Amino acid sequence: MVKDYKQLLTNTRANISKFIHHTPVLTSSALNKIAGTSLYFKCENFQRMGAFKMRGAINAVFHLTEEEKKYGVVTHSSGNFAQALSLAAKTFKIPAYIVMPENAPQVKKEAVRSYGGNITECLPTQTAREHTASQIAKEKQATFIHPSNDLNVILGNATATLELLEEYSDLDVVITPVGGGGLIAGTALAAFYFGNNCMTYGGEPFAVDDAYRSLLSGKIEINSSMETIADGLKTTLGTINFPLIQKYVTDIFRVEEEEIIKAMQLIWQRMKIIIEPSCAVPFAAIVKHKEVFKNKKVGVILSGGNVDLTNLPFN
Amino acid sequence: MVKDYKQLLTNTRANISKFIHHTPVLTSSALNKIAGTSLYFKCENFQRMGAFKMRGAINAVFHLTEEEKKYGVVTHSSGNFAQALSLAAKTFKIPAYIVMPENAPQVKKEAVRSYGGNITECLPTQTAREHTASQIAKEKQATFIHPSNDLNVILGNATATLELLEEYSDLDVVITPVGGGGLIAGTALAAFYFGNNCMTYGGEPFAVDDAYRSLLSGKIEINSSMETIADGLKTTLGTINFPLIQKYVTDIFRVEEEEIIKAMQLIWQRMKIIIEPSCAVPFAAIVKHKEVFKNKKVGVILSGGNVDLTNLPFN
Repeated sequence: MVKDYKQLLTNTRANISKFIHHTPVLTSSALNKIAGTSLYFKCENFQRMGAFKMRGAINAVFHLTEEEKKYGVVTHSSGNFAQALSLAAKTFKIPAYIVMPENAPQVKKEAVRSYGGNITECLPTQTAREHTASQIAKEKQATFIHPSNDLNVILGNATATLELLEEYSDLDVVITPVGGGGLIAGTALAAFYFGNNCMTYGGEPFAVDDAYRSLLSGKIEINSSMETIADGLKTTLGTINFPLIQKYVTDIFRVEEEEIIKAMQLIWQRMKIIIEPSCAVPFAAIVKHKEVFKNKKVGVILSGGNVDLTNLPFN
Repeated sequence: MVKDYKQLLTNTRANISKFIHHTPVLTSSALNKIAGTSLYFKCENFQRMGAFKMRGAINAVFHLTEEEKKYGVVTHSSGNFAQALSLAAKTFKIPAYIVMPENAPQVKKEAVRSYGGNITECLPTQTAREHTASQIAKEKQATFIHPSNDLNVILGNATATLELLEEYSDLDVVITPVGGGGLIAGTALAAFYFGNNCMTYGGEPFAVDDAYRSLLSGKIEINSSMETIADGLKTTLGTINFPLIQKYVTDIFRVEEEEIIKAMQLIWQRMKIIIEPSCAVPFAAIVKHKEVFKNKKVGVILSGGNVDLTNLPFN
């Protein structure tokens, strides 16, 4: 069945708008000068719990039946989606079960608990995470919500770009970081159905360039190592978001680790806002590929601002 | 001659609005919860050059005669006003001479130069600063602009609160940090003439509580030591702003150094914005004196965001 994405996106925005922040769009003449283009930063670092993930999590929970809501939701994540699903579940007064690797930073576990999530620790492997989550889903009759490979999550994420295009309808380009693919897939849908010939690009670290390679090979690739400061971008694409990315995303640009840190520092210094390393990747890609973005109106999804302030990469 | 401040403020806003940013007002449900009140943060950390000082500097330069403009402006400052006056002068294409103590941080000297300011170094004493500035004023026929004790600077600073009250006309209170007195004097004028029974409070570190003591004694007091992380608040009041502060400011609250750091960290973590230590003092005062602000609508002037990212007080 062919999906009517335009209608789905319109419905999603109407459904979830009261549960999320309508985030501001900021501009910076200093960064425009550096990039040689016009940038419109959609500040999802100001979103509830500090990241765009809140949009997808809320939309996923919103779509549960009353019966499903009784038993709650379960996911595995050591990052922002763990917090997002916990807060989304709390918003709807239902339980959230979060599977986290036992070596996840204490600060992340505390954040999940502060949003009311029930943590189960597991061994730090993908298999252990999936196994534990599936066990909890069975035991508690909880609904499993994937952090990025879930259509409701993707549609929820898309609402950031819907808001951005409402404010700046003539954007030529919108660019996001690429991790599990849930943000860029939603963004690309929104840009295609609501933009005015607005193209979608992605930014990805060379160190975890699975999405770049997936677009080349035509199948979902994985990362052999994960040595990147952009800790939100280590995950790989899924069977639901990959076809959308293949169809609607124009290109993915890769950047080096030092380019990510420099981009992050520039945004902190010049815009006076806090973004996490993953969030700096699109700006790094724009600066690296000035020729692609020159004289265009470029929307940049600032994906999140959750960083450990006592452990920053600047020197 | 009695001044018509209402008219002066209206004129100032009209004169300078095209040279400055109309900064956004942000709110945070997390910080409202911590403070037990409703806070409206006027983000002057997003102002041009990163601080409210841009408003006063622009207004001072705007009021020069064509003859005065030819010869430029001079000030002594090691902080944000040095950058602000340099950028204001650059905006009007006139020279700016900045007297800085020879031990001022390299990063601050570079910032001034990046905005086109001509630096003259002097010994790190108040006498040397004033003497050197007065010499340059004579030699270059440049007009001396005081960073805080100048009516045009005060009126320029006031425009932040004019914008804030236009957006939130029913604020009960507005609060600013207190350093040289130029921000709180302008804020208090704006609140008195354009607010709806809106009172003005100040926040000041115990370590440099000259303004608090000046209000008590009825004369301008000085600080015997200056050991505070709030490096923008070490300066003392002046003969132009002190009478305004006496007349229009309700009270000044003092906070400890650790309270400033905690407030700064909370704003960084929860609001995902970068503010400098001086800028955190009002929020620290609100949290310390919850009884005063309870159930009120409180405007908070976030004064600036210029910090050295490689030297942060968090641990």
